[in-house]
Amino acid sequence: MKVYSKNQLQRYPIYLKFFKKLLNEGVTTVSSPMIAKDLGYSEEQIRKDLQAVCDTPGRPKKGRDVRKVIDTLESFLGYHDKVNAVILGAGKLGSALARYPGFGEMGLRIVAAFDIDPAKYGEKDGIAVYPIEKLDAVLQETNCRIAIITVPPQEAQAAADLAVKHGIRGLWNFAPTLLTVPDDIILENVNLASSLAVLSHNLNRRLAIEEKFDY
Amino acid sequence: MKVYSKNQLQRYPIYLKFFKKLLNEGVTTVSSPMIAKDLGYSEEQIRKDLQAVCDTPGRPKKGRDVRKVIDTLESFLGYHDKVNAVILGAGKLGSALARYPGFGEMGLRIVAAFDIDPAKYGEKDGIAVYPIEKLDAVLQETNCRIAIITVPPQEAQAAADLAVKHGIRGLWNFAPTLLTVPDDIILENVNLASSLAVLSHNLNRRLAIEEKFDY
Repeated sequence: MKVYSKNQLQRYPIYLKFFKKLLNEGVTTVSSPMIAKDLGYSEEQIRKDLQAVCDTPGRPKKGRDVRKVIDTLESFLGYHDKVNAVILGAGKLGSALARYPGFGEMGLRIVAAFDIDPAKYGEKDGIAVYPIEKLDAVLQETNCRIAIITVPPQEAQAAADLAVKHGIRGLWNFAPTLLTVPDDIILENVNLASSLAVLSHNLNRRLAIEEKFDY
Repeated sequence: MKVYSKNQLQRYPIYLKFFKKLLNEGVTTVSSPMIAKDLGYSEEQIRKDLQAVCDTPGRPKKGRDVRKVIDTLESFLGYHDKVNAVILGAGKLGSALARYPGFGEMGLRIVAAFDIDPAKYGEKDGIAVYPIEKLDAVLQETNCRIAIITVPPQEAQAAADLAVKHGIRGLWNFAPTLLTVPDDIILENVNLASSLAVLSHNLNRRLAIEEKFDY
């Protein structure tokens, strides 16, 4: 089995979005220098990344067929399959994610949301919100392996424990909490604090440079 | 000016969260091996990361004072300052972010949200939603440099252009859109597709290994 680094995996959806944009604009072949110019990665890295998922190398000078590489990337990323997921925590963020149309394109189907607040129970926009006690029944019915955690920070560990207890194997954690999970559970955190750290640092750096040179 | 890599910047909020958890549990000194065990980074990397923001090296065997390193990291990350930001797009995700209590701790103050839908105008939970025509007036009043983009994908480029036109210097983009911005604008994307790619790949890999060895 090929091994892909985390950074590399994160780049594939960005390539895919870029190739779809190209195709939309009528561009049908793509070369590493074109990609490098727009995405800001090195040509060497782009060649390595694409070679790792495509069967054939890009043709020198001409590059790759945009449609084919889109299909290859979608298939590599599992967008052609359907994977079921549940949402734990039907507050504002949970509701926003439950209705996010992009997940469907990525092969992720939200089958239900769960909460402890009876005021949230019921169906809205095609997504049912159930009491957390129904989690086990829904998971068994839907063969669901992924739980999206959008509960408040102080409840995130309990939600993760409950999900794991009922057979969930992948946790997508949106709560700003460091979760502890067994070794055989895959945990991926969406860390807004980390993203903001990059934005703030780069912005402050930019503004400091401008001040110094008095642009 | 010191240069920090994107990955390194992303780790600092995670260290911070970990140290706060330790302090909560009554732990007052912390060493690289302890951190390595819990966060899964190498001791070498932890030492390098902390040395890059702390004035003094950690004491051999004893490590660092947890309170001091928390204070240093908060100050490095700008959590002690207050930076103003606006939200463009007051749908579900925009509303969730507008009310997200974590931003306050990170020094980010949401001053207002903007939308084109009159049904969304007004104040709710202390955040005002204005028509987009008021953007310029609010930005001038609040000396705001950051805009958070939570509009639908097809409107994200127009929202970014408008923000830049009115003096915004940092864009935090939550729309699944590849934005084009001038060179002196700092763009940070929260890419859910990239995060999901890592989760799906690692989960499929894990399940395939188990199937093969029939645990």
